[in-house]
Amino acid sequence: MTLPHIVITELVRRTLLEDLGHGHDSTSEALIPADHKGKLVIKARESGCLAGMDLACAAFAAMDPALNIKPAAQDGNQLNAGQALLTVEGNARAILAAERTALNFLMHLSGIATQTAAYVAAVKGTKAAITCTRKTLPGLRTVQKYAVRVGGGKNHRFGLDDGILIKDNHIALAGGIENAIAQARSNAGHMVKIEVEVDTLEQLENVLEAQVDAILLDNMAPDILKQAVAMIGGRALSEASGGITLETVRAVAESGVDLISVGALTHSVKALDIGLDIDL
Amino acid sequence: MTLPHIVITELVRRTLLEDLGHGHDSTSEALIPADHKGKLVIKARESGCLAGMDLACAAFAAMDPALNIKPAAQDGNQLNAGQALLTVEGNARAILAAERTALNFLMHLSGIATQTAAYVAAVKGTKAAITCTRKTLPGLRTVQKYAVRVGGGKNHRFGLDDGILIKDNHIALAGGIENAIAQARSNAGHMVKIEVEVDTLEQLENVLEAQVDAILLDNMAPDILKQAVAMIGGRALSEASGGITLETVRAVAESGVDLISVGALTHSVKALDIGLDIDL
Amino acid sequence: MTLPHIVITELVRRTLLEDLGHGHDSTSEALIPADHKGKLVIKARESGCLAGMDLACAAFAAMDPALNIKPAAQDGNQLNAGQALLTVEGNARAILAAERTALNFLMHLSGIATQTAAYVAAVKGTKAAITCTRKTLPGLRTVQKYAVRVGGGKNHRFGLDDGILIKDNHIALAGGIENAIAQARSNAGHMVKIEVEVDTLEQLENVLEAQVDAILLDNMAPDILKQAVAMIGGRALSEASGGITLETVRAVAESGVDLISVGALTHSVKALDIGLDIDL
Amino acid sequence: MTLPHIVITELVRRTLLEDLGHGHDSTSEALIPADHKGKLVIKARESGCLAGMDLACAAFAAMDPALNIKPAAQDGNQLNAGQALLTVEGNARAILAAERTALNFLMHLSGIATQTAAYVAAVKGTKAAITCTRKTLPGLRTVQKYAVRVGGGKNHRFGLDDGILIKDNHIALAGGIENAIAQARSNAGHMVKIEVEVDTLEQLENVLEAQVDAILLDNMAPDILKQAVAMIGGRALSEASGGITLETVRAVAESGVDLISVGALTHSVKALDIGLDIDL
Amino acid sequence: MTLPHIVITELVRRTLLEDLGHGHDSTSEALIPADHKGKLVIKARESGCLAGMDLACAAFAAMDPALNIKPAAQDGNQLNAGQALLTVEGNARAILAAERTALNFLMHLSGIATQTAAYVAAVKGTKAAITCTRKTLPGLRTVQKYAVRVGGGKNHRFGLDDGILIKDNHIALAGGIENAIAQARSNAGHMVKIEVEVDTLEQLENVLEAQVDAILLDNMAPDILKQAVAMIGGRALSEASGGITLETVRAVAESGVDLISVGALTHSVKALDIGLDIDL
Amino acid sequence: MTLPHIVITELVRRTLLEDLGHGHDSTSEALIPADHKGKLVIKARESGCLAGMDLACAAFAAMDPALNIKPAAQDGNQLNAGQALLTVEGNARAILAAERTALNFLMHLSGIATQTAAYVAAVKGTKAAITCTRKTLPGLRTVQKYAVRVGGGKNHRFGLDDGILIKDNHIALAGGIENAIAQARSNAGHMVKIEVEVDTLEQLENVLEAQVDAILLDNMAPDILKQAVAMIGGRALSEASGGITLETVRAVAESGVDLISVGALTHSVKALDIGLDIDL
Repeated sequence: MTLPHIVITELVRRTLLEDLGHGHDSTSEALIPADHKGKLVIKARESGCLAGMDLACAAFAAMDPALNIKPAAQDGNQLNAGQALLTVEGNARAILAAERTALNFLMHLSGIATQTAAYVAAVKGTKAAITCTRKTLPGLRTVQKYAVRVGGGKNHRFGLDDGILIKDNHIALAGGIENAIAQARSNAGHMVKIEVEVDTLEQLENVLEAQVDAILLDNMAPDILKQAVAMIGGRALSEASGGITLETVRAVAESGVDLISVGALTHSVKALDIGLDIDL
Repeated sequence: MTLPHIVITELVRRTLLEDLGHGHDSTSEALIPADHKGKLVIKARESGCLAGMDLACAAFAAMDPALNIKPAAQDGNQLNAGQALLTVEGNARAILAAERTALNFLMHLSGIATQTAAYVAAVKGTKAAITCTRKTLPGLRTVQKYAVRVGGGKNHRFGLDDGILIKDNHIALAGGIENAIAQARSNAGHMVKIEVEVDTLEQLENVLEAQVDAILLDNMAPDILKQAVAMIGGRALSEASGGITLETVRAVAESGVDLISVGALTHSVKALDIGLDIDL
Repeated sequence: MTLPHIVITELVRRTLLEDLGHGHDSTSEALIPADHKGKLVIKARESGCLAGMDLACAAFAAMDPALNIKPAAQDGNQLNAGQALLTVEGNARAILAAERTALNFLMHLSGIATQTAAYVAAVKGTKAAITCTRKTLPGLRTVQKYAVRVGGGKNHRFGLDDGILIKDNHIALAGGIENAIAQARSNAGHMVKIEVEVDTLEQLENVLEAQVDAILLDNMAPDILKQAVAMIGGRALSEASGGITLETVRAVAESGVDLISVGALTHSVKALDIGLDIDL
Repeated sequence: MTLPHIVITELVRRTLLEDLGHGHDSTSEALIPADHKGKLVIKARESGCLAGMDLACAAFAAMDPALNIKPAAQDGNQLNAGQALLTVEGNARAILAAERTALNFLMHLSGIATQTAAYVAAVKGTKAAITCTRKTLPGLRTVQKYAVRVGGGKNHRFGLDDGILIKDNHIALAGGIENAIAQARSNAGHMVKIEVEVDTLEQLENVLEAQVDAILLDNMAPDILKQAVAMIGGRALSEASGGITLETVRAVAESGVDLISVGALTHSVKALDIGLDIDL
Repeated sequence: MTLPHIVITELVRRTLLEDLGHGHDSTSEALIPADHKGKLVIKARESGCLAGMDLACAAFAAMDPALNIKPAAQDGNQLNAGQALLTVEGNARAILAAERTALNFLMHLSGIATQTAAYVAAVKGTKAAITCTRKTLPGLRTVQKYAVRVGGGKNHRFGLDDGILIKDNHIALAGGIENAIAQARSNAGHMVKIEVEVDTLEQLENVLEAQVDAILLDNMAPDILKQAVAMIGGRALSEASGGITLETVRAVAESGVDLISVGALTHSVKALDIGLDIDL
Repeated sequence: MTLPHIVITELVRRTLLEDLGHGHDSTSEALIPADHKGKLVIKARESGCLAGMDLACAAFAAMDPALNIKPAAQDGNQLNAGQALLTVEGNARAILAAERTALNFLMHLSGIATQTAAYVAAVKGTKAAITCTRKTLPGLRTVQKYAVRVGGGKNHRFGLDDGILIKDNHIALAGGIENAIAQARSNAGHMVKIEVEVDTLEQLENVLEAQVDAILLDNMAPDILKQAVAMIGGRALSEASGGITLETVRAVAESGVDLISVGALTHSVKALDIGLDIDL
């Protein structure tokens, strides 16, 4: 799995410039001769699911196109603690200046992929897919959503422009659920799906009549979800949402829902521990 | 506490455009009349330390300069669940289009401030300050470091250009610790501090002779840290680092170190739950 | 109808800077005193459907926030030749420097809206909606698609990231239509619709079995389209495409298709004639 | 003929990112394996004058620098329907993701070059050159003006900063034509030419006394143009302008004017039909 | 005299962000309360010609739109040492954060205007105009050329795209001067002037036959310039160039040339001393 | 000595686009065939210290990656008049279009390095280091500070975010020097040094008690400086500042100060004369 080359280079460029600040690496430039060579290796320091290799490679290449960059693993691989992921050889200053950017991407995205994979594993055998939300970190949506896919999850909407998701506030402002859905159907392009959020089985009833593509069942207990799934009867996709954790996700999945969305996949990420050492 | 206006508007602009993708909000534009007014309120859904209010306000203002935006709390405030933070009144489409961006900033930065404040509280009464690292999320360093300050923490280096931090890889590539420190002192500007990482008390001995501003004591147990602090004897600042958690931080602080750096403050952030409701 | 404020200001800013080139307006700055005031009015010089008013207003406001800008019409209005659209009063240099940018947006987008409205009128009474394609002009997709909506058309996909449209080349590269659709269904998120292009009724048969959201019937004569619509029988949306003109669109619509996509709406636009005069 | 490399890469990069939206190609990524190879060929589907090859090549190269890109024609070539223009071989996803961007440039710019060449052919044997205006599409001025040159046309001013063109509004605001020209001559740099727009032969008389480089004869019938050319008598360049079409351009040219400017060359472009097929 | 608002805000925004680096002002934020007010005044510390007021004002406004900014002088004014130029009142942090950016613009641009005015004064009474070159500092061409105009100078070409200036290298690569001029005339648009550089009176002879708009007389002594001016006899503008200083410029001007270009106006600028004080 | 590759390419790209303006080189494109080859050489036209080679090389490479670029000198080299610095061979249009950008960087940065080296030479044998200030030219701080290092100077703060420098205005606004320093110490991170500006020996006394890292002795005569150095007695670094010239710097240095900061190093730069010739 991969992201388009041009998307990666743009993001990596901006991130390196953020770390370089006023445009130099004071430590390496003070300590290490300009033409010094080195060989460094990136290693996992705990087990998990790898994501972000193309971004890490691009960070080194952007600092010095002449570096010799050899990946030893690829996105989606299950890593063991101590496993080598990437070897970089060449100009030592360039390698050290790219180090933090490369590791920050790898640690964050592998953290997402690892957490996603845990949720996916927890619902194994049910029909439920794990999906992310728009609760992403500013500027990182493209890569965070990518890491969810790497971990075996599915992507929900990518932005405001992408699918219609009618939530409680929309319904209140649009003057009721029937009107909201009617407006959505009338104004949306034919490639746009419509999903509606409901909080109760009563609301669900109304929505079912209006025929939408998917229904977000918000903050319902597993037994209510089960009733909701039965009421829907395959007429729309069912999505469970609202404070679902790794502990509760299995029970939710066993209600029979099609999708379980978990905001924490992208808004509360525990980094995977990954480091860089000199390769002697 | 606040960030410069121009820094905020730049970041908010890019984040809104990320969410708008191809340039429109399909849901609101389909459902809600262009001139519809609404009043919405952002509320904390759990307790914690608030950070990011200026970014949230700027997100609404950027979508429509005519919105009436009234903050009801400020960065650094300790929030209760249910507390109103911000009321926005005006064009309903503009408010809903800015919602996710505003919340994503508030949830992430308040998460950082809350976690930082917990570490700061845990070391209360010791001399140790809590500090962050360069393990930040791509594109978010400025605001993440700001949120650490809001939570009562201190900032370590902001980038590669900012202070000299000599780590094990630098020492290996520079041909030993004495040479590394000598090069640093000779090449650095007079406003640049020099910190050196050591892993053992033996290394510490060498560094002490070379007179640096700060010494990073990496991955040492509290009792070793205590010996290190004694050896340093005030000749340099002492910083403990390496996998320190909220459970272990008190013991580390009691070793007498001046600083405790915690990468997780910015690389593994649990969002604070904050939401937006229609204000009826 | 409108576009988000922040989307408009970004595009207008870049366009003004394009016209200002090395950063000045040689004519106005040479001829007109820096504090000279003027009042100018934008008028339609032929009849058509207006689109782009917010962009035009934003162009003047960006050159001088103190200008007094009074729109006299709004997007979607049917214009007569000679009708006043917008009056601007204030600094004469600023007005003249923004003139060309404002007019270029208005002429192009009104051209699109006018052409779209003509197609929509031509199929009136049938069930067919008129839709645009990704054959847009570089950098202008957001506003071109907006102008199609203003003219009464619908939007197809906004980009590569937005819906799955399986064309002949994809099918060839994916190893056949069944495999292509199976892969799409398995990998797409639940908010993503799937449309498949077919050239013949034989291909249509295969696709129908695979159950997709929409079927693009490429380059079929109206009578073949009629057969295709019958075969589909409401199991998917039907879209006619391929060289359809204002002359042929009615016959296509009467085949009973749901959608007719017309690349020329955005790739071959005849500008609407609109000009600016001094208001004496 | 060509555009500078750096100008092309900037524009192509932004256009690819516009099409990629949230950063991925949902169709290719779902259907085609990441390392799949393909060979595709771009072909003209109607006859015309080619423009935009460097932009098309740059689009493919930006998606994947390893693609093998072989142009089979160059800008300015007269194309036949069915003629192959470009073969691209390599990563199939990258080729398909760049396809629309490459074609959108080729279709639009070849449309301009073709239309320009038609005007140039229509005035063959007269002294008149065909020139474009500042009525260009936002963000595309550089490449549109380039395509005019490819088609055998000349470029008028590139922007507000580039030459002084005194139009009716300037004259009114500057307090009359004599004052306007005097100010222009006094304030302009020595590399800046001065052109003045006149609507009547009376205005022309005044302008001739003031000695300018060129005179724009706006909306004059061919017989009036002939009189104007005689009056000018070579003391300035004469430019005819105002609603000139392919049907009327010959008569205008036979009036003896030096230049004929046609806004429609860039504001009302009919795309040339060009497509991409798998090369089996 | 002024620059377009949008040009100023773009440049000022980038410059402030350059100074803010990682996004904060460590000194003010540490020392001065967030809501502290102050009143500061910018004063000339030596005499000279003022340029850059709009940029200075824009720097303060960009840091805080609520500041009260009162200019007390305008571009082109002759300043005395100690003269107040601008008073700013409001948020003290914002004022101090914008200070350096505002002063850097004022000092540099006033330095250019002052030096230009000195050259202009030195040639008073002759027909020679003083003009700048493309030897400008990266990123600052627009404002440097503006400051030359403020000082009473004229602008030469703004860029590679702006006028044809045929230098020795072009002539060598184009295969001789006749061919170079013929190509230029045949390919240039009608608003483009052609200037040719000559080093000797022999070269001048050739150029005169070819009829160009201007002739750059490179590195000629005043008496040779006089001969050259006589040879040209008004058939083209004459421009003297090459190492001309404030000491030599009068003699050059008395040769009768139309223009004297001085690279040092923009490539070797002595800043005018301007500072900011608290207004007690 | 060198700057990071990615920093250089960003700055060079923007500078080339500034010179290309509307996107073309009118002279070369009119005169020289698109595939013409040439060989040109950059030579010093006066003696001095070279800086900016990587930027010059990057300018040529950005215009055409296929150019053959051979540096014959490196940053920090002492140049003689006539010495060849760089040979470029390949596409003639590309070379000529990059010429001005390459030379503008070389002339400006070598001017800085040369001037800095002169100051450094003037204080040879004393303990004083020569340092620059934040009085840099907008957009050029990174490269100007680099050129100071090339010339043997040291860098002061890079921006507002980088070190705490407490000046008279800060002290006034913070309510006195003791409070200012106390606030600085309490709020600054541990990697941030604190420097305070004093104008008199009385102020110095107060500051010494407060223990800061460095003291800026503003506008003091050499004999007062000597007293100040004695008073400081090694308890802080001493920096002399204020209108110091090449004529006065030796006397200042002999006062025993550690640092001498010279704003003119970057705000008043005399370009080094460097040119490009065809290599026959």
